[in-house]
Amino acid sequence: MHDRADLLVCGDHVLPMTDGLPVLADAAVAVRGRDIVAVGPRADLERAHPGADRISGGIVLPGLVNTHGHAAMTVYRGLMDDVPLHEWLVKYVWPAEKRFTSPENVALGTELAVAEMFASGTTTFADMYFFENEVGRVCAEAGMRVLLGQAVLAFETPDAPSADASIETGAALAAKYGGHPLVSVSLALHAVYTVPPEKLRKGAAMAAKWDVPIQIHVSESRREVADCVAAHGVTPPRLLADTGVLRKGTICAHGVHLTEEDRALIRDAGAGVSLNPESNLKLGSGVPDIAALLASGMRLGLGTDGAASNNDLDLWDAVRLAALLPKGRDEDPTAVPAREAVRLATRGGAELLSMGDRIGTLEAGKRADLCVVDTSSPHMTPLFDPYAHLAYGTRGSDVVHTVVDGRVVYRDRRHATIDAAAVAARVRALAPRIAESAGLRGPARR
Amino acid sequence: MHDRADLLVCGDHVLPMTDGLPVLADAAVAVRGRDIVAVGPRADLERAHPGADRISGGIVLPGLVNTHGHAAMTVYRGLMDDVPLHEWLVKYVWPAEKRFTSPENVALGTELAVAEMFASGTTTFADMYFFENEVGRVCAEAGMRVLLGQAVLAFETPDAPSADASIETGAALAAKYGGHPLVSVSLALHAVYTVPPEKLRKGAAMAAKWDVPIQIHVSESRREVADCVAAHGVTPPRLLADTGVLRKGTICAHGVHLTEEDRALIRDAGAGVSLNPESNLKLGSGVPDIAALLASGMRLGLGTDGAASNNDLDLWDAVRLAALLPKGRDEDPTAVPAREAVRLATRGGAELLSMGDRIGTLEAGKRADLCVVDTSSPHMTPLFDPYAHLAYGTRGSDVVHTVVDGRVVYRDRRHATIDAAAVAARVRALAPRIAESAGLRGPARR
Repeated sequence: MHDRADLLVCGDHVLPMTDGLPVLADAAVAVRGRDIVAVGPRADLERAHPGADRISGGIVLPGLVNTHGHAAMTVYRGLMDDVPLHEWLVKYVWPAEKRFTSPENVALGTELAVAEMFASGTTTFADMYFFENEVGRVCAEAGMRVLLGQAVLAFETPDAPSADASIETGAALAAKYGGHPLVSVSLALHAVYTVPPEKLRKGAAMAAKWDVPIQIHVSESRREVADCVAAHGVTPPRLLADTGVLRKGTICAHGVHLTEEDRALIRDAGAGVSLNPESNLKLGSGVPDIAALLASGMRLGLGTDGAASNNDLDLWDAVRLAALLPKGRDEDPTAVPAREAVRLATRGGAELLSMGDRIGTLEAGKRADLCVVDTSSPHMTPLFDPYAHLAYGTRGSDVVHTVVDGRVVYRDRRHATIDAAAVAARVRALAPRIAESAGLRGPARR
Repeated sequence: MHDRADLLVCGDHVLPMTDGLPVLADAAVAVRGRDIVAVGPRADLERAHPGADRISGGIVLPGLVNTHGHAAMTVYRGLMDDVPLHEWLVKYVWPAEKRFTSPENVALGTELAVAEMFASGTTTFADMYFFENEVGRVCAEAGMRVLLGQAVLAFETPDAPSADASIETGAALAAKYGGHPLVSVSLALHAVYTVPPEKLRKGAAMAAKWDVPIQIHVSESRREVADCVAAHGVTPPRLLADTGVLRKGTICAHGVHLTEEDRALIRDAGAGVSLNPESNLKLGSGVPDIAALLASGMRLGLGTDGAASNNDLDLWDAVRLAALLPKGRDEDPTAVPAREAVRLATRGGAELLSMGDRIGTLEAGKRADLCVVDTSSPHMTPLFDPYAHLAYGTRGSDVVHTVVDGRVVYRDRRHATIDAAAVAARVRALAPRIAESAGLRGPARR
């Protein structure tokens, strides 16, 4: 039969994240090739597809979508913490990047990142970095869905002498990956403080021409906003609107310091914000007003940011903070309920990355991107509401299976497409040289 | 030889948490009976103790000390979330407790809590609940160090008709457990809004007479402070000082809304605060000013609070929030460095519970309470600074071994003293009745 499934993913609870956010008890997702062909009662689907491969667990939900980060920066994870941002960049990150951000190390760091993300249920990530061609290659091989973002800055970077050269690289990526099943392309204009208005305009025109989304850091810190107002007389979102960068599908990373007018601008443009609360806290950027962002009605997703400022790529931490921080910030225990936080990490993220037509919900006709969470351990017992456990109790290590584009990339907590131990060993071998170059003393071994 | 060790705990990095917070590379902790007999280079200790049992891993540190919670409330984990505090208590928690908080269910919920805490590296916890005799029995059997806290409230509770009766129960506990190697006793006066001043005075006098610490919820919410000022003309800490409750060793849980004068009162009394940031966020109580509390010089530890308001007992979440929240709250990336957050969870907690003479650091002569964290997985790779990984990357599931009072209670991620699967199954069997009693519909199975 032509609709015979290859794979059944069964759960005590299946959360398809469709409208109304239903919970299906004793249900299953039937997968054929890359696609979901049915979601329904487990017994019915088992009867209909007797020969299918089968994986199962406590909660089945769409794979997590990590909407902002710099995957290859895993090699700089915890390089230096608890120092002011400027000192951190100038004394540690930039010197290390100058020396170590090569095509080989971007591939290596991305492999480590993909291993970490699969193991915590992430099936798609948006990247903003250098040598993005390597990132695309690694993701295509490992079976990860990715939105590449060639970073554009006004000065020399590890992979380009100028902003114009970076935009050229973006053009080549867009041409190369058009129609690829896993790899999509965006243009990553770094920020208003690193890309001058004329290059913002040029980048916006190019993104429109290639029909790809733009990623950009927006209003991350109070200082960024003040400097933009001082230099240009307007807030970063207004400057982006004026230069054409704020358009349908633009992904504004952070949005910690937005005015009500900024939020309306972003929403009305059909753009959205990638919330990275853990990075915002760690770098001292502030506490994003997630309740106000939600109330604005704009597109919203969650991100981890890079491992140098988080220090991990476990999106469950972002889910938890998205549910917890607004409650504490506004002293309101009803702010951002658990299911809303889970929606942000899945369907919300897919829509933010303009992938809502393909992923983000479990429905027949969409690509089969999903993860399965174990609920048998003490910290998940008892279970009254699966959304509550996902928002307030789940850690990356509770993920037992991860499926991307119909392929089981992580099964029974083992990687099927990456030799994670070998990748980790290669990163550990590189680490002492990075530590030495950054002038660090002390332990640099695992 | 009389100083022959039974057990060697070896680490790539050993953090003894002694003054200066040193990092010992390739080191070990030698244990004989209940005690640490040496901390030093791994090779030396292996040579000196060739016959000792051996466990090892990436980072060895003192066991975590969870300074506030209600362990048996694990059976109500996630019973209802995202509702206002009063509705949560009146409609869900109190009706459930009235019907289900029996000696049997307190023992069951505590067993589940102990299994969860061992599996995340916690070796001591302070409890505040009912039927504390059961809590003591479970901990003694499982090998957990505990500070019992018989809860005193002015009205009928699941285990007592009155405050006076609860104080009597506390007296019996203090007599029973005097000199016990694992079980210590405190008196848990619930809060200024549930215990009237005359009972606070009586409780304080009794605690002084038995020479045990007092636990009490203090300035958890803005409303608690406002009500106290309206009723008594003073803040909760001042009322506690006036009634004798604020004395050496008193453990003030929460302290979210403290004035500078409040902080000075607590510090000068030789008391301290148990920080429970995750619970404070979830219940909408607010964001504690951890930097100001640290600056005051008072005793400070971390806690999870009960599983009904967290929703897990993983103290690593509290470590991370203690490091992250002050940075975001004050927009200062240097606030509460990683090592300070780790210190709070170990040595700080031990000192807060008046156990600093026995536990909290790894030194010869102290009890052998410690945990071992694996650092081989992708999210812990590479490693530049073990403190950074503990504060920003470690989850409970990274703990591989836990030792309490010289006994390996958790080894290679398996419980040695508790049948965790059987306990979880018993809690799952109870859950549908709890859900039904609370008027909940929907999934209550795992």
